[in-house]
Amino acid sequence: MRSSDSEILERLGSVLESRKRERPQGSYTAHLFAAGLDVILEKVGEEAVETVVAAKSGDPERLVYETADLWFHTLIMLVHQGLSATDVLRELARRFGTSGFEEKQRRGNERGES
Amino acid sequence: MRSSDSEILERLGSVLESRKRERPQGSYTAHLFAAGLDVILEKVGEEAVETVVAAKSGDPERLVYETADLWFHTLIMLVHQGLSATDVLRELARRFGTSGFEEKQRRGNERGES
Amino acid sequence: MRSSDSEILERLGSVLESRKRERPQGSYTAHLFAAGLDVILEKVGEEAVETVVAAKSGDPERLVYETADLWFHTLIMLVHQGLSATDVLRELARRFGTSGFEEKQRRGNERGES
Amino acid sequence: MRSSDSEILERLGSVLESRKRERPQGSYTAHLFAAGLDVILEKVGEEAVETVVAAKSGDPERLVYETADLWFHTLIMLVHQGLSATDVLRELARRFGTSGFEEKQRRGNERGES
Repeated sequence: MRSSDSEILERLGSVLESRKRERPQGSYTAHLFAAGLDVILEKVGEEAVETVVAAKSGDPERLVYETADLWFHTLIMLVHQGLSATDVLRELARRFGTSGFEEKQRRGNERGES
Repeated sequence: MRSSDSEILERLGSVLESRKRERPQGSYTAHLFAAGLDVILEKVGEEAVETVVAAKSGDPERLVYETADLWFHTLIMLVHQGLSATDVLRELARRFGTSGFEEKQRRGNERGES
Repeated sequence: MRSSDSEILERLGSVLESRKRERPQGSYTAHLFAAGLDVILEKVGEEAVETVVAAKSGDPERLVYETADLWFHTLIMLVHQGLSATDVLRELARRFGTSGFEEKQRRGNERGES
Repeated sequence: MRSSDSEILERLGSVLESRKRERPQGSYTAHLFAAGLDVILEKVGEEAVETVVAAKSGDPERLVYETADLWFHTLIMLVHQGLSATDVLRELARRFGTSGFEEKQRRGNERGES
């Protein structure tokens, strides 16, 4: 991964922040911010199911495409709620830090998920 | 965002690759790789719904937590299918490159999503 | 369909009402009523995804089984919210009455779903 | 519940069977049958999320409306796969027959869902 790959979430988040503030005419994301949380969440759910269907269909390109749609719409949801990709990435880093990778597994067991 | 934030997906992906290869006893992710695609997809769907419920509940910490769970399980899905976070980040970069941010909006219109 | 088939939703609803009132120890549904709306909705979402995965897997018995799980958990959701299967069946009857079957299609078009 | 309520799923199923066979122009359901399983499943997932969002919004009419949409699209899915509402209602009757209502709870426990 080049650094430009890993930073796309950050750059994309900045663009979404400005779409949220400026609501330019004709922008898909400005439309979603105007439509509100319920519509954004329905898109998140829809893209999650499309990801599941793509995975079952066995086409890797389609799976990458639908997962990108899912991550993109969760970013819109985060920005709509005043949060950012960084908040989520730090939560992942906290869980899976140098010593802590298996924390999730222990937590899972405690929740009876094992 | 510090570079360590944006690189967590990459580092996490590497750990998941090794869990997939080595299947250590007692690891939650090794358990999921062994359980197979359907179980992983059910977790992706479950975490998507938990994210939606958390967003509607209005608790930002819970929303960050559940979104992290969702992204984590989509990473497991990608690695299970021989793909990586980089594939998805590059797809996002392709769509939302310097000149292309509104491509999505145009595509959306073509698909009748306005 | 025998009348006993079509009435199962009604009879099941009555049992769920009493589980909600009496909360018997060791009952799965009493456990869900006690756990509250968010947990019930997470189960609805989980069963929806399991239904989608079952349909893609092409096993009819599994699809019937998972759809039954999905309908069952939507019934629990309705009863938790003070509603019933009858409310939903009457909404379906209203939409798809003798003259009205294609109302949905028109509504769909108005919403741009066509 | 009047008998006409409980039989709506059966009558609706018959209409869907004929839409599947005859594919009339301009029919929403004929459009879905033509679009195929993946599109139908995406609608099932979308309606499940809309149901969850409606329940969290606390509006009973909207919840009834979205649950009707969800059941309707699962019926389309069943008919597309050569199954029917009766198959699902019999599975529910089998599980929750006179003596068997708590079977689910026991099964749940065995699956570690408690």
